[in-house]
Amino acid sequence: MTAQEIAKILDNVRKENPLVHNITNVVVTNFTANGLLALGASPVMAYAHEEVADMAKIAGALVLNIGTLNSDVVKAMIIAGKSANDHDVPVIFDPVGVGSTKFRTDMARKILAEVNVSIVRGNAAEIANLIGDNWSMKGVDAGSNGGNPIELAQSAARRLNTIIALTGKEDVVSDSNETYMIHNGHPILTKVTGTGCLLSSVLGVFAAVEKNHLFAAVSGITVYGVAAEIAASKTPHKGPGSFQIEFLNQLSHLAAEEIVQISSVEKIEHP
Amino acid sequence: MTAQEIAKILDNVRKENPLVHNITNVVVTNFTANGLLALGASPVMAYAHEEVADMAKIAGALVLNIGTLNSDVVKAMIIAGKSANDHDVPVIFDPVGVGSTKFRTDMARKILAEVNVSIVRGNAAEIANLIGDNWSMKGVDAGSNGGNPIELAQSAARRLNTIIALTGKEDVVSDSNETYMIHNGHPILTKVTGTGCLLSSVLGVFAAVEKNHLFAAVSGITVYGVAAEIAASKTPHKGPGSFQIEFLNQLSHLAAEEIVQISSVEKIEHP
Amino acid sequence: MTAQEIAKILDNVRKENPLVHNITNVVVTNFTANGLLALGASPVMAYAHEEVADMAKIAGALVLNIGTLNSDVVKAMIIAGKSANDHDVPVIFDPVGVGSTKFRTDMARKILAEVNVSIVRGNAAEIANLIGDNWSMKGVDAGSNGGNPIELAQSAARRLNTIIALTGKEDVVSDSNETYMIHNGHPILTKVTGTGCLLSSVLGVFAAVEKNHLFAAVSGITVYGVAAEIAASKTPHKGPGSFQIEFLNQLSHLAAEEIVQISSVEKIEHP
Repeated sequence: MTAQEIAKILDNVRKENPLVHNITNVVVTNFTANGLLALGASPVMAYAHEEVADMAKIAGALVLNIGTLNSDVVKAMIIAGKSANDHDVPVIFDPVGVGSTKFRTDMARKILAEVNVSIVRGNAAEIANLIGDNWSMKGVDAGSNGGNPIELAQSAARRLNTIIALTGKEDVVSDSNETYMIHNGHPILTKVTGTGCLLSSVLGVFAAVEKNHLFAAVSGITVYGVAAEIAASKTPHKGPGSFQIEFLNQLSHLAAEEIVQISSVEKIEHP
Repeated sequence: MTAQEIAKILDNVRKENPLVHNITNVVVTNFTANGLLALGASPVMAYAHEEVADMAKIAGALVLNIGTLNSDVVKAMIIAGKSANDHDVPVIFDPVGVGSTKFRTDMARKILAEVNVSIVRGNAAEIANLIGDNWSMKGVDAGSNGGNPIELAQSAARRLNTIIALTGKEDVVSDSNETYMIHNGHPILTKVTGTGCLLSSVLGVFAAVEKNHLFAAVSGITVYGVAAEIAASKTPHKGPGSFQIEFLNQLSHLAAEEIVQISSVEKIEHP
Repeated sequence: MTAQEIAKILDNVRKENPLVHNITNVVVTNFTANGLLALGASPVMAYAHEEVADMAKIAGALVLNIGTLNSDVVKAMIIAGKSANDHDVPVIFDPVGVGSTKFRTDMARKILAEVNVSIVRGNAAEIANLIGDNWSMKGVDAGSNGGNPIELAQSAARRLNTIIALTGKEDVVSDSNETYMIHNGHPILTKVTGTGCLLSSVLGVFAAVEKNHLFAAVSGITVYGVAAEIAASKTPHKGPGSFQIEFLNQLSHLAAEEIVQISSVEKIEHP
C-alpha cells in the first residue's frame, strides 16, 4: 500500500462518518468514543441482549473487546456478532488478556467459534495464546518470549482463517497470503490505558469504509501510529497525560501530507 | 430570563453544592462527574436496586440516562425515579439513542410512563422518536429531517406534559406554554463524547437549586454554552482533546460577567 | 519514615512494575488505569466471577472499591479477596460512600467480615461509618463533624485490626500502634473525580513492592500528595481539567529530589 492510498481511506472515513458499534470494556469506553469522534467516525456503545442485533446490523462495523468481559457480555457479543455476519458488517475482535486466565481464553475461543471475525487485533502474547502457543502474560499486558511476530501473525492468520493485526514494538498485519509491517507508533502509547483497545475500534472504522480489510487494517494502524508520533513530538518531556490529549487532537487533524511524510509501511515478501 | 438571573442561579449552585444522583451510561461517567465537580455540584453514581431509592431521596436531583441501558439498569431507574417522585426530587431524563433500536424506544417510554419527569433533554431525533414522530437516527446521533425544533419542542412538551430541552445547532426549552431559544454553544461539542449527557446532568444541578425548572433548564443550557464558547476560543485550532480539558476548566471558572457578555437567550412568542 | 525511604520504594515500583488487580467503580476505571500506568505499575481490571480468583492470585495487590457496587460485584470482590488471602496478595479496600445508604454500609461490613484487608483507605466519614460511628455523608463525599482524624484512624485500626489510611485535609495512617500524618496534597484534588479511588489503587501498587504495609501506605500517600502539589503549581489558575492532566504527567515524572524537597511526613507520638 502507498501512503497516498492510506490517506485516501482516511479521507473516506471523514466523508462517510461510519457508525461503529463497540461492545468494549468499562476502562476504555470514553477514550474509545473520543478517539473515534476525533477521527471522524460515529461511535455507539450498546450492550443489551435485546438491542445488540439491531444496533450491529445498522453499523458499518462491530468491534468486540473482552477487556472486562463477563458471561453476560460475551452472550451479547455473540448475538451482535451473528447479526453482523448476517448483514455483512465486518467484525473486529480484540482478545484482551487472553492467556492470563482460563476463562478469558475459553471465552475468546468461543467467540471465534461462533462469529466470523474479519480482523483480530492483539499483542503477541494474546495472539499466541489464542492459537494455543505459550506466551507469557502479565495481566492484560504481553510478556515476551523472543518469538518472531511476523511468523506468529502469519501462522495465526492461517489457523484462524482471518486477518491478524499483531501490534507491539513493530506492528504486523497478515492474512497469511500477504503480510505488511508498519514501522510507526511511539513507546508512550504503552503508558496510556486503552490505546490498544482504541486501535481495535479504529480498525473497525477503516473496515467500515474499505472493503479490502487487509488494506483497512494496514491503513488504520498506520494512521494511528503517525498520529501518535506527531502527538509525542508535540509534547516532549510532558508525560502521558499531555500526550493522551494531544493524541486525540492529532487523530482529528492528521493531514494527507503528514501520512505521506511519516508513514513507513513495508510489504513482507513471503518465502 | 436575564443574564443576571442566570448568573445568580449559577452562584446558588456554587453556594449550595447540590448532590446529584446520576444513573447514566458507562461511556460518560467520568466526564459527567468531573463536569459536575467543576461546576460546583456533588455528583454521585449509584445503580444497585438495593440502594437507588435511598440515594435518590437524599439527592437534589436525579438524572436518568439510557445511553448503555439494559433491563437491569432500567429497573434501577424506575425504582430511583419513584423514590425521587415521592420525595419531590426533580428527575431529568436523557433518552439517548431513542429511535435507533426498538428496545431503546420501548424502555424510554416505559420510564416516562412510570416516572414523573421534570425535564427531558435530547436531540431533535430523540425527542421526535419519543413522541412517535419519525426522525432518522444514526446510532445515538441525530440525523436531520429539516423539521422545526421550536414546534417539535412545544409539541413534545404538550404531549409528554414535561419540560423539553431540545439541543442541537440551536437549543430550545419549552414547557409548551413558554418557550426559550438559546444561541450559545460551539460545534466542537459534537466532537467530544458525552457532552449531551453531561448537559443533562448539569440540568439536574440547576433543577436542584432553582424551583422553576423551566428557568433551571434555560440557565443550565446557557451556562454550558457560554463555557463551551470560551473554552473553544481559548483552544483555537487545537482539537477536541484540548477543548475537552479547557471546557472543564471553564465550567469551574465561569464568571457572572462572562455570562452577561456572551449569553444569548431569546424568548419565543407563542402565536 | 524518611523521604529517602519513600523515594526508594517509588524506585522499586518503577523497577518491578507490579501488576495490580482492581475491582473498582465505573466512574474511575480509566483514570485509575492511567494513574497506575503513569506511576510505573501494570493495572488490570477484571470482574467476572469465573476469573477473579485466577487474576487476584497472580497480582501483586488486589484493590476493592465499592463506588458503584451491586450484589454481583460484591460477590466478585469476595471471591477475589479470598483468593488474594490464600496467596498472600495484599488487599486494599476503599469503602466509597459507606454511610450514605444502608446497602453500602452492609456490603462494606460483609467484605470486611469475609476478606482479610491489609489497608482500608477512606475519608473520615467513611471510616467512622465503617466502625459504626455517626458521621454525616453527602452522597459519596464526607461531611464534617469536627472529630479528630488521628483518634478516628487509631480507633478504627484497632477495631478493624487493619491499617487505616484516612485521607482529607490532613492524611493519617495508623495500624493503631504506629501513626503517621502526611502534610502533602492539594485542595484541587477534591475537584477531580476519582482522586480518592486512584489513591487507593496507588496504595495497592506500593503494598505490592513494600512488605511493611504501614510504610507502603505512608509512601503511597506522600508520593501522591507531592505529585499533586507539583501539578497544582504547574497549572496555576487553570482549573481542574488542566490539573488532572498535569497530575498524570507528574505521577510519571516524580523524582527522588522532589520527594525529598516537598514531602512532609510526621510521626505521631502515641500517649
